[in-house]
Amino acid sequence: MDFYYSPKSAAYAVHILLEEVNATYNLHLIDLKNSNQTEKSYLRINPKARVPSLVTKDGVLTETPAILTYIAQLYSCKQFLPKTVFDFSKVQEFNSYLASTVHVAHAHKHRGHRWTDDEKSQSLMSKKVKENMSDCAEMIENHFFIGPWVMGEQYTICDPYLALVYRCLLYTSDAADDTPCVDLGGRRI
Amino acid sequence: MDFYYSPKSAAYAVHILLEEVNATYNLHLIDLKNSNQTEKSYLRINPKARVPSLVTKDGVLTETPAILTYIAQLYSCKQFLPKTVFDFSKVQEFNSYLASTVHVAHAHKHRGHRWTDDEKSQSLMSKKVKENMSDCAEMIENHFFIGPWVMGEQYTICDPYLALVYRCLLYTSDAADDTPCVDLGGRRI
Repeated sequence: MDFYYSPKSAAYAVHILLEEVNATYNLHLIDLKNSNQTEKSYLRINPKARVPSLVTKDGVLTETPAILTYIAQLYSCKQFLPKTVFDFSKVQEFNSYLASTVHVAHAHKHRGHRWTDDEKSQSLMSKKVKENMSDCAEMIENHFFIGPWVMGEQYTICDPYLALVYRCLLYTSDAADDTPCVDLGGRRI
Repeated sequence: MDFYYSPKSAAYAVHILLEEVNATYNLHLIDLKNSNQTEKSYLRINPKARVPSLVTKDGVLTETPAILTYIAQLYSCKQFLPKTVFDFSKVQEFNSYLASTVHVAHAHKHRGHRWTDDEKSQSLMSKKVKENMSDCAEMIENHFFIGPWVMGEQYTICDPYLALVYRCLLYTSDAADDTPCVDLGGRRI
């Protein structure tokens, strides 16, 4: 498989999972600061100009929740997805919330230009990010996180995705300018 | 099952699918204009104060892509989900894009208050919605829609979700103030 990523993006969740399942893959850095994502060669892979993208033997996959589900199903022996229909959907519910609400809330910090061309509005949107991310963290903690992992005793594809959100939260706080790394099998990602 | 919905929300996609599979369910209107979604009785069902919610025998499910997946798996005889790992994930990819990019783009029309308290910024965000929704429609048409259904010959859970987006696009255009309905088995929804 070929994995296209940027270290400070949603690709981080996929990167963790690829390491967790000991997948064999080629790593391709898409440098968002240098606009690699809008180069023609990458747009042929992912016309949405986003990361992550996973090129498989069957074709290209994009969107973090879908890629996580694909990898977990491909490496089903790892049991990173529950077997019952309801529990499987609870995993999808959690990851969908992260993708469509939490990650979107965070994107208003540096990507406000997606939703308005007005720079002052972008700056004002950025100011509300901390409040929104705190609300999301409370929602997760009070209503969705079972513990010790998101879904309880079983590590699932919710956990690498939550690791990304946790990193976003640190990023949102005023504590640190740089983002932390995780150490997986000696590879810091 | 108990289905909590509002007719002009993402619940529309779930509503179509429930009818397509001939599910037996109780319909509960959550009137967003009267802030039903923030009433204590509803927050006990869905603390996120959003629709749709589906109360099943195993518990509550929220988030449109997850509910669609649940219903399709419950009524697997209808074959609204592909069987191969890759094709299943392509369905999830499409619905995840609708949830986290397309629906979010549309939400900036009337729900800008989620991301900024400044009313002028909300108004400016609203102005970019038409451009963003057009870009999303082009992306879908040029790169993801196979035809005659989204995934080709097989009707999948992408199709009721795309029906919702199509309604949003009509809504975004200046053509009509009211939204169209679909007629399923004599029930207009």
